Amino acid sequence: MSITVQREALEDERMRLVQRSIEDYFEERSRAAARYGPEFAHLWGLAANTVLGGKFVRPELLVETFAALTDTPRHAVPPQPVVRAAVAVELLHYAFVLHDDVIDGDLVRRGRPNLIGAVAHASGGPADRTSALHLGTTSGILMGDLMLSGVYQLVAELDAPAATRTRLTRSLGETIDETVAGEHADVGLAHGVVAPDLGTILAMSANKTAAYTFGLPLAWGAILADADPGTVRALTKAGRHLGLAFQLQDDLLSVFGDPTCHGKDPASDLREGKVTALIAHARASAQWPLIEPYLGRGDLSDRDLAGACALLEACGAKAAVERQIEDSLFAFRAATADTSIPARARDEILRFAKSLRGRSS
Amino acid sequence: MSITVQREALEDERMRLVQRSIEDYFEERSRAAARYGPEFAHLWGLAANTVLGGKFVRPELLVETFAALTDTPRHAVPPQPVVRAAVAVELLHYAFVLHDDVIDGDLVRRGRPNLIGAVAHASGGPADRTSALHLGTTSGILMGDLMLSGVYQLVAELDAPAATRTRLTRSLGETIDETVAGEHADVGLAHGVVAPDLGTILAMSANKTAAYTFGLPLAWGAILADADPGTVRALTKAGRHLGLAFQLQDDLLSVFGDPTCHGKDPASDLREGKVTALIAHARASAQWPLIEPYLGRGDLSDRDLAGACALLEACGAKAAVERQIEDSLFAFRAATADTSIPARARDEILRFAKSLRGRSS
Repeated sequence: MSITVQREALEDERMRLVQRSIEDYFEERSRAAARYGPEFAHLWGLAANTVLGGKFVRPELLVETFAALTDTPRHAVPPQPVVRAAVAVELLHYAFVLHDDVIDGDLVRRGRPNLIGAVAHASGGPADRTSALHLGTTSGILMGDLMLSGVYQLVAELDAPAATRTRLTRSLGETIDETVAGEHADVGLAHGVVAPDLGTILAMSANKTAAYTFGLPLAWGAILADADPGTVRALTKAGRHLGLAFQLQDDLLSVFGDPTCHGKDPASDLREGKVTALIAHARASAQWPLIEPYLGRGDLSDRDLAGACALLEACGAKAAVERQIEDSLFAFRAATADTSIPARARDEILRFAKSLRGRSS
Repeated sequence: MSITVQREALEDERMRLVQRSIEDYFEERSRAAARYGPEFAHLWGLAANTVLGGKFVRPELLVETFAALTDTPRHAVPPQPVVRAAVAVELLHYAFVLHDDVIDGDLVRRGRPNLIGAVAHASGGPADRTSALHLGTTSGILMGDLMLSGVYQLVAELDAPAATRTRLTRSLGETIDETVAGEHADVGLAHGVVAPDLGTILAMSANKTAAYTFGLPLAWGAILADADPGTVRALTKAGRHLGLAFQLQDDLLSVFGDPTCHGKDPASDLREGKVTALIAHARASAQWPLIEPYLGRGDLSDRDLAGACALLEACGAKAAVERQIEDSLFAFRAATADTSIPARARDEILRFAKSLRGRSS
């Protein structure tokens, strides 16, 4: 999302409520953690500082969907269970980010140290870097576990009918399975144990990010609004298409975007040898033998990166992914035409999708 | 537990039921995983092969507690929800084992490759060992996540009253928090960022293993039997003491035990620099300057190990831990005298505790 949307989110009283509720959650957990010693409470504090400050795409989607399906005025304060469910979808994101960073060996997110980096930095200088890093990755794994468990606890404690909680819990389990399957395929692709055909890569992208970032918040907004299963399914499907467009745009941004905006290391996807749709298209081009040597190299310089970018553009891979994004957005709009999605909900998610276009971070 | 207890468990029709139910679970998950590609289904198959074959201490404790509190004949087949809950406690153990092995960098458990080892072995020869290991640890992290989520799903789907499921879910969340806090302290102690006083080490041991291995199965058996909260609390407390004795015995076995019985690398605790109660006692002795050099060394030979063992015995640390085990068992027996624990339940867990004595693996 663009900086504008981020500002809009912060101006949105509903998102401020979600933010406060997340802060309360971390404060409470940190306080409760103190009974296991100051180091454990400190870990919760570090987690709060390194994960807060997101852009709340997921909570916003959930809250908008709920409002649209219950005919609540757009800016009305949502009921408490809806706020808590929005907190849960954001915490689920943190859980995945934590384990993803451990898997990718990343120490930085959005230009700041992530939890691994913060723990490693706090616990050791360069003299015992291995030990500091081990403590950092251990903390990432364990905090991800706490977060995953915490999301289930939040759902279990929602002040909502038992049937609603059951539907949310089931949807959560399916989404975790999908996300993990996508992450597994992602790493398998990078290591060459999963065949890199375009269909597999698109499915991986949709599973790894679209399912929990778009499918889940739409589904949960609908479930909380007591929508029938047909509506939930149709929204989940539309969300997957929109999420795929979002993920493909993210893949492009992390190679071609301005790192001062998106805050990621611009070369990390190339350095880690990530097999994205961009790479699949490049692989099918005549320029592939020139591009391949850049992939999976830990020592890419800025000049190398510029060279790789030029080749990825010249071979037509960039344009092909841009077309793929348009295709996904078309499929998304077609999916929103499903008659089981009420008109206002359709309008809201189309509006939301529009706000995601042309983002630069 | 001794080999005899293991045989007894396998001869126990109730544990065979649990075993079959676990096998069914993995088969069903593996089948469902195929929709995300053959590699993901394969991961589930590998997980099943590397985690099955445990000794079912946890399911047995749960089933015995339920039987004792419902006045069911000892060998009667338990109701389906009790079997499924027993499956869940065993899967929770797998989840912790998976992440523990990732954190410790272990590739072997009980003398066989664990999931990390199996994936690494299947996916690469020594030529790309780093890549194979990364795929292995990634699989361990992701499968642990699936397992953790799977446990919550099993509880959510239990054919039990909503109030029972709520109590089980809450107890699950508390236990995960405790276990993770214990694991965090364990790694913090090894890296010297947590002060190694005996009280901290004993609390770490109780949190890391006793809570989920003894406290949880006892609590769940009681909750499924619809016992009142006082009884659940008293059983959980007793379970923690028993579990601490079990963990201390495990610490001793992993240094002094026969590795052909317990299947662990006998030097791993010393090599990883684990700060166990044994080490805390050694640290307080005059021989510590002689013992310290063995700790955290990756290249311990069999001769080094024998030397370290002799010193740990001579300095009195071994005897001190043995006394600590007796103290924990005393505290356990005292805790079972709580009047809110019915007589038969007390007898059963005392009998169970007896079966754990003198184990050699």
